[in-house]
Amino acid sequence: MKLPVTLSLDPDSGTIQFIDQTRLPGNLEIVECTTVKRLAAAIRNLEIRGAPALGVAGGFGIALAAFRIRKTDRAGFLDALKKDGDLLIGTRPTAINLSWGVRKVLQAVEQEDSIPSMRDAAVQEALAIAREDEACCRAIGDHGAALLPNHGTVLTHCNAGALACSTYGTALGVIRSAVAQGKDIRVIACETRPLLQGARLTAWELVQDGIDTTVITDSMAAGMMQSGRIDCAVVGADRITHDAVFNKIGTYMHAVCAKHHGVPFYVAAPLSTFDAERSADDIVIEERAREEVATCGSRMTVPEGAKVYNPSFDATPMELITAVITERGLVTPPVDMKAFISRHTIR
Amino acid sequence: MKLPVTLSLDPDSGTIQFIDQTRLPGNLEIVECTTVKRLAAAIRNLEIRGAPALGVAGGFGIALAAFRIRKTDRAGFLDALKKDGDLLIGTRPTAINLSWGVRKVLQAVEQEDSIPSMRDAAVQEALAIAREDEACCRAIGDHGAALLPNHGTVLTHCNAGALACSTYGTALGVIRSAVAQGKDIRVIACETRPLLQGARLTAWELVQDGIDTTVITDSMAAGMMQSGRIDCAVVGADRITHDAVFNKIGTYMHAVCAKHHGVPFYVAAPLSTFDAERSADDIVIEERAREEVATCGSRMTVPEGAKVYNPSFDATPMELITAVITERGLVTPPVDMKAFISRHTIR
Repeated sequence: MKLPVTLSLDPDSGTIQFIDQTRLPGNLEIVECTTVKRLAAAIRNLEIRGAPALGVAGGFGIALAAFRIRKTDRAGFLDALKKDGDLLIGTRPTAINLSWGVRKVLQAVEQEDSIPSMRDAAVQEALAIAREDEACCRAIGDHGAALLPNHGTVLTHCNAGALACSTYGTALGVIRSAVAQGKDIRVIACETRPLLQGARLTAWELVQDGIDTTVITDSMAAGMMQSGRIDCAVVGADRITHDAVFNKIGTYMHAVCAKHHGVPFYVAAPLSTFDAERSADDIVIEERAREEVATCGSRMTVPEGAKVYNPSFDATPMELITAVITERGLVTPPVDMKAFISRHTIR
Repeated sequence: MKLPVTLSLDPDSGTIQFIDQTRLPGNLEIVECTTVKRLAAAIRNLEIRGAPALGVAGGFGIALAAFRIRKTDRAGFLDALKKDGDLLIGTRPTAINLSWGVRKVLQAVEQEDSIPSMRDAAVQEALAIAREDEACCRAIGDHGAALLPNHGTVLTHCNAGALACSTYGTALGVIRSAVAQGKDIRVIACETRPLLQGARLTAWELVQDGIDTTVITDSMAAGMMQSGRIDCAVVGADRITHDAVFNKIGTYMHAVCAKHHGVPFYVAAPLSTFDAERSADDIVIEERAREEVATCGSRMTVPEGAKVYNPSFDATPMELITAVITERGLVTPPVDMKAFISRHTIR
């Protein structure tokens, strides 16, 4: 069985289909989403997650809205569309890709005069975002595949896969491309506490593709590097400043251990992730809820009198990174990130 | 509220009291254990765990048996006692301390002639093991406390505390002694996947003592070291060969990251933990059940098609360790471990 598309839009009805990521790996539930309100709830509840996927979902949401709004005058239709856009953006206000996807489709709509052509433009622009996302992942995959061994074991952390994009994935795209080229790759998926995206999502995705996958706790990676059982690591990124890669908490620990053992450490990310004007010190790392660390299922696992610290991301300095794999090729630190970026169009 | 004794023996009845560690931190349940069968179940189910605690429990178990056995002839009494000892040892056959505790008390019993004096000897020897364990922990605490900062933050992993001994603890003993000396210590307790002994047990113990404790996932420690928020790390040990410290999985990762950041890394362990004739390569690391990693509460978090790797321990080479804190003082690698050991009596 191959992995289905994780997020898609029916161009004739505006209906969105997505995999509910909160129910994996126990249940593969494909949700038929026919209202913007339901889509907003899905984003809020992390049924849809991952930076590129949120960009696609934002665009799809405006296309869906264009089928549902009953206004017959252009101004009223556009107002209602913008209101739905605000509803979507409000579900995760710090997700840059989400608002980017919403605004990109709204801009395309505003250039049209009639309601039917506005609806058409919304669908076409939304589908273009998804196509661009897939093309980007496949290009990253092709550039990255050459870095992986012909026979070997690749470590990854969190989920930078099809579920985080609309399909294929960034870090997992690199692995998929290598496997497609006939390389014999085994994957070590770190479970990624606290939310277990590695165990729940990455392992599930790779198993669908028939890729040999072993889940470990995050603390086991160093020991596997010590005994020579990891050939390289590939992870995604949430934001890349000129001096550091921001990604899921635990990435930095793996990078330090990889450096200690001489294991190559790769980051796979589209150029849209780059924020090269800023440095690591400018970025505030979001802290998330106590419950994510303090409970397991319904059980309390941290006593009430103890505090919890739950940063969502960490910052890995460029000197620990062997290469950043983008859709336009590799960036090998140390490099002038600003110059690299300025040579390429950023979507 | 102060931490109660986690494991005790009533010398008049042989009844054993212990804290059921599987119910923490949600429920503090003190079990009155009046049969060897119940004690065996408690050890098998990890209600009692931790190398030193298992030594004490083994000794207490023979004392309890000496009150319950109804044989009136010396040979029959001793046979029944040995049978109970075998039952206890069989619950965790690889736990060296458990069989050591059982055998130590049996040896004391065998030197006596009458049944009443055999019972007395069992009680006295069992209590001596517990007293020795406590004295050992307090000596480790006193030697180690000097290493901790006057005001600072100490990282620990897993549970090397009162719950792992009969009271006080080894790594947590060092922290307790430092606090008792008036040092202002905050503790970062790594949750310690997969079984969460850090979150469930270490945080619970320290909160009882009013020590400022914050729980993090294991993957967050490196980021805290990077931002200068960890002054040193103190962990326990399961076995110390001449070239490496075997301790709970994740210890090695912390040690690599500590070295990278110049954070002192201490191991607190009694001399009975030393196995200086052997090297790391001689030790087979036990792998535990898939379910520990693959489920959270009753929920499956790893898909069935994915494998799981679950080693219980890892090996941290001596060069990553700043000092080993023993009851006879510090061992500072590189050192001739065999010479150090031979200079001291091992219990």
